[in-house]
Amino acid sequence: MTEALPTIAILGGTGKEGKGLAYRWAGAGYPILIGSRQTEKAQSAVAELRKLLPATVYLEGMTNPEAAQQAGILVITVPFAAHRATLESIREYAQGKILVDVTVPLVPPKVSRVQMPPAGSAAQEAREILGEGVEVVDAFQNISYEHLLNDEPVECDVLVVGSSKAARTEVLKLVQAAGMVGWDAGTIENAVVVEGLTSVLIYLNKQYGVESSGIRITGIPRD
Amino acid sequence: MTEALPTIAILGGTGKEGKGLAYRWAGAGYPILIGSRQTEKAQSAVAELRKLLPATVYLEGMTNPEAAQQAGILVITVPFAAHRATLESIREYAQGKILVDVTVPLVPPKVSRVQMPPAGSAAQEAREILGEGVEVVDAFQNISYEHLLNDEPVECDVLVVGSSKAARTEVLKLVQAAGMVGWDAGTIENAVVVEGLTSVLIYLNKQYGVESSGIRITGIPRD
Repeated sequence: MTEALPTIAILGGTGKEGKGLAYRWAGAGYPILIGSRQTEKAQSAVAELRKLLPATVYLEGMTNPEAAQQAGILVITVPFAAHRATLESIREYAQGKILVDVTVPLVPPKVSRVQMPPAGSAAQEAREILGEGVEVVDAFQNISYEHLLNDEPVECDVLVVGSSKAARTEVLKLVQAAGMVGWDAGTIENAVVVEGLTSVLIYLNKQYGVESSGIRITGIPRD
Repeated sequence: MTEALPTIAILGGTGKEGKGLAYRWAGAGYPILIGSRQTEKAQSAVAELRKLLPATVYLEGMTNPEAAQQAGILVITVPFAAHRATLESIREYAQGKILVDVTVPLVPPKVSRVQMPPAGSAAQEAREILGEGVEVVDAFQNISYEHLLNDEPVECDVLVVGSSKAARTEVLKLVQAAGMVGWDAGTIENAVVVEGLTSVLIYLNKQYGVESSGIRITGIPRD
């Protein structure tokens, strides 16, 4: 089984988003490489995750470029301020692969207000930086990561948008493997909705006094 | 009761969106003015609606500027191609009032791809045209209008964004009066998400072979 699953590099994988996704995917049998700017930080995140997972999982910590080079699918989970530099550091190792962009281009302090970068969205910026040889797909922007490490169900659907249908289909498998419901929501131009929705949800959390508002797609039968 | 409710002008109210909303609000006791470029068209829509409603409702058909002048709240339901001209025709009568913008800036033929106007969204364009004396609020972009005239429940929440919290609160009352669940989703900068979501839902409809996908906000208790 495990041999058939691609290795996933989680770039900037030492934060709650990266650790939460790594936990779910490692538990589902995917080999996981946690990347960070510093090897020690990545290894420390791996040690933390190992305590929560069976001994059979494959998890390693290394630098972002090392992780990108060794993986078949790349996932970037960094604050927007580190988005460009992280992508530039792994550009040559990303060619021919899928990059899953989890970044939300929040502009503190007004994080409940949509403010997109000049490219139109973080995903479109990633595509500009990496070039047409890399398929860029947005996913997981709208979920609350606290639920992932606690094995709690995620009460938020995952909208998947990106530069090709084939890449979106691959990423939908990762959404399901992480225990969530995903939807192919169209081309990379739709990334502004997926990323901007995070600001709307942050606003709703504040406005209605909750911690993890989300969305659920209605009107489509579920499996 | 009825005396306390503001009169609503539905500009370009002869299409399915305008007629559907007029039907719901007239039924809830709001005086409704249907506006159109031609008085006859507006009156014909009114005649159609009267057949579906009790004799006690208040419904009149007239030109858009006449409707805008006589109403306390304005609602615009026109194709994006008629957005600017319609707003310019009622600008002087809108001052000091709330404009509810239902417009989605779709660019045929690629209607499942988000393509916003230079202002950032239709709502922000409306605000530019009308000036700061008019509160502009986006709502009802994501619902399927077929359900409104059939008295069917709408399985899609309504995100309400706009230029002031007071105006959003007024519009949330209209959402409830129309039989839907609404949420204050923040400032007018968030309009790109509300309007863009329509393209995402059109994509989902096509992709998953359904007619009216929608969204439901999760993680917030409902009344």
